[in-house]
Amino acid sequence: MANTEGQTITCTAAVAYAAGKPLTVEQITVEAPTGARGAYQDHQHCYLPHGCVHSVWFGSEVRCVSLCFGARGAGVVESVGPDVTSVKVGDHVIALYTAECKECKMCKSGKTNLCSAVRATQGKGVMPDGTSRFRNSKGEPLLHFMGCSTFAEYTVVADVSVVAIDRDAPLEKVCLLGCGVTTGYGAALKTANVQKGDTVAVFGAGTIGLSVVQGAKAREASKIIVVDINDTKKKFAFDFGATDFVNPKTDLKDGQTIVEKLVEMTDGGLDFTFDGTGNVQVMRDALEACHKGWGQSIIIGVAAAGKEISTRPFQLVTGRVWKGSAFGGVKGRSEMGSLIEDYNKGNLKIDEFITNKRPFKEINEGFEDLHHGDCLRTVLNY
Amino acid sequence: MANTEGQTITCTAAVAYAAGKPLTVEQITVEAPTGARGAYQDHQHCYLPHGCVHSVWFGSEVRCVSLCFGARGAGVVESVGPDVTSVKVGDHVIALYTAECKECKMCKSGKTNLCSAVRATQGKGVMPDGTSRFRNSKGEPLLHFMGCSTFAEYTVVADVSVVAIDRDAPLEKVCLLGCGVTTGYGAALKTANVQKGDTVAVFGAGTIGLSVVQGAKAREASKIIVVDINDTKKKFAFDFGATDFVNPKTDLKDGQTIVEKLVEMTDGGLDFTFDGTGNVQVMRDALEACHKGWGQSIIIGVAAAGKEISTRPFQLVTGRVWKGSAFGGVKGRSEMGSLIEDYNKGNLKIDEFITNKRPFKEINEGFEDLHHGDCLRTVLNY
Repeated sequence: MANTEGQTITCTAAVAYAAGKPLTVEQITVEAPTGARGAYQDHQHCYLPHGCVHSVWFGSEVRCVSLCFGARGAGVVESVGPDVTSVKVGDHVIALYTAECKECKMCKSGKTNLCSAVRATQGKGVMPDGTSRFRNSKGEPLLHFMGCSTFAEYTVVADVSVVAIDRDAPLEKVCLLGCGVTTGYGAALKTANVQKGDTVAVFGAGTIGLSVVQGAKAREASKIIVVDINDTKKKFAFDFGATDFVNPKTDLKDGQTIVEKLVEMTDGGLDFTFDGTGNVQVMRDALEACHKGWGQSIIIGVAAAGKEISTRPFQLVTGRVWKGSAFGGVKGRSEMGSLIEDYNKGNLKIDEFITNKRPFKEINEGFEDLHHGDCLRTVLNY
Repeated sequence: MANTEGQTITCTAAVAYAAGKPLTVEQITVEAPTGARGAYQDHQHCYLPHGCVHSVWFGSEVRCVSLCFGARGAGVVESVGPDVTSVKVGDHVIALYTAECKECKMCKSGKTNLCSAVRATQGKGVMPDGTSRFRNSKGEPLLHFMGCSTFAEYTVVADVSVVAIDRDAPLEKVCLLGCGVTTGYGAALKTANVQKGDTVAVFGAGTIGLSVVQGAKAREASKIIVVDINDTKKKFAFDFGATDFVNPKTDLKDGQTIVEKLVEMTDGGLDFTFDGTGNVQVMRDALEACHKGWGQSIIIGVAAAGKEISTRPFQLVTGRVWKGSAFGGVKGRSEMGSLIEDYNKGNLKIDEFITNKRPFKEINEGFEDLHHGDCLRTVLNY
């Protein structure tokens, strides 16, 4: 670890200049955490989540400025602002796109993991003091992304947007706890609170869906059905704990819908269903495959802009519940430690999601990897 | 009470022969409960709920046959089938369109008040043995309605579709516990489980909505906002316990939506919202007026056929929960006694809903009453 305290650093980053275009890998400058409470870290590892492909559209459309991209990563703290007490130089940390200040109305409610402390400024792509810490080689300011900006060798994040973790945890693995694994695992354990014997269906066998499977398995669900249109996901599904795999393209009888198939497999419907696809028609199927009277469907996937979910209200009046989950309902600073413990004990698989590794400069090729069914996550090394 | 045990009875009923047409008041015959477990009762009082206006369409469209109409009423048992043990001759009873058998998967789940015991036959308009007990003056069979057929002086219902109540409770009042009052009160107490200090908004100040208000008041909600486009409902709202009344037609600032108004009134949104209108746009507003992170919206109103609810999935991913309530989540046979107690103690208003009374032969005029804002419920006497 270099001694960079208080210095402006020049390093490599991937910058989004336009929606739908490849990221530009270039040298940027990263200022030291000048304002109070800014934590500063060296990003050794970040990874490519499917979600970013959606998010870049939002960023560019709304703000029309360049972004220092990326929302999920892990690293080592090299410098902290004067008022920072939650992390210190040398700490191993995970960046949190869902902050936890422990002081706002949301954090204090005890009912949600959503924190309002940095929501407004995070949404605008700046630090809580309203400024950016990044400039490109032309000296133009770059926006932060989702409070993290992990597609940069160095970043500056708010102290509420970072959590220190066990130093023995391998950063190149547990960086995945910055999003998909935590999101899926938490959705099963916290948002749904699956109980022993429950039946569960998971739509979409990506990292989020397979992490839901892990959570359902940890709770001893009696049936864990993975639904995916890509048969190459079948092996992943069973490896992670699924009891059944259904491919709607090939496994339905003539005229049968996926909802009818799942209802038939579960004596009336599922106790819990999860959407990990972001497809609003799939979200509807997931709801309608729930058991009347108590089945709950949890939306995790991020839908395309403007897309809406629909159903007949009768589905809800007859007892189904429609809810959602962000970051798995997990409070990043309070609860990340227990996920690391689950990983260390072998109860939570993370390594198995890393199907591809690339140097950071190949970030755009890494996004291409994600379009192949046999890729779950690509981890980038600086 | 006449001694009619085992006899076929000729009596007055209101029959639906076509959707959207007035009911025909005529003499019908009602067979004795011949099959096992059929309970038989004298309907002294029933009432007109808004819901029936919708239901008749369903009935006639799907089944294309005449219906002995009505789903909410109270009376005295005059005859029971040989295997009936839950009620006996002379019992005062309320008919239950939501049955409770205490034996099916649904009843035993402990998670819902929806019972599957007579669902299939009730949906077909027949008794559990597949037959009807009603014939019109031409000798043509008439279908039962929602397992109750309370728009007849006498009816036959399944033993799981009726509950005996305290004989001191006035039947011409507590007949309202057969639907709207129980539905709204239960939605607040059981489905939502409102807690002290919670904020609540209720869309639609009809019997269901005002009963939600009563439930929220019983739980000491800190704010109970009634939303209705009819100012004549304002007095009802405050009488039943509302703290605020908003008329979206007159109480919004220029360009303000009802969602924005409610969010402004409640520092970010409601803990619980309830739709008692059946309007799918209102259902959406009710959801979106919920507080991020934990707000729950409960659909109670019955939507028109084919109508669907919609929203952006982001509303759910950020922590709002969309659910529904049928008969307020109340198990009719196990829990009706506690509602009668609440009424007897003065904690649950029922009398105040009865704004109109008519003899049974004026049933069609009674339906007209419901279109006037100053009418909550019309009770019919035979």
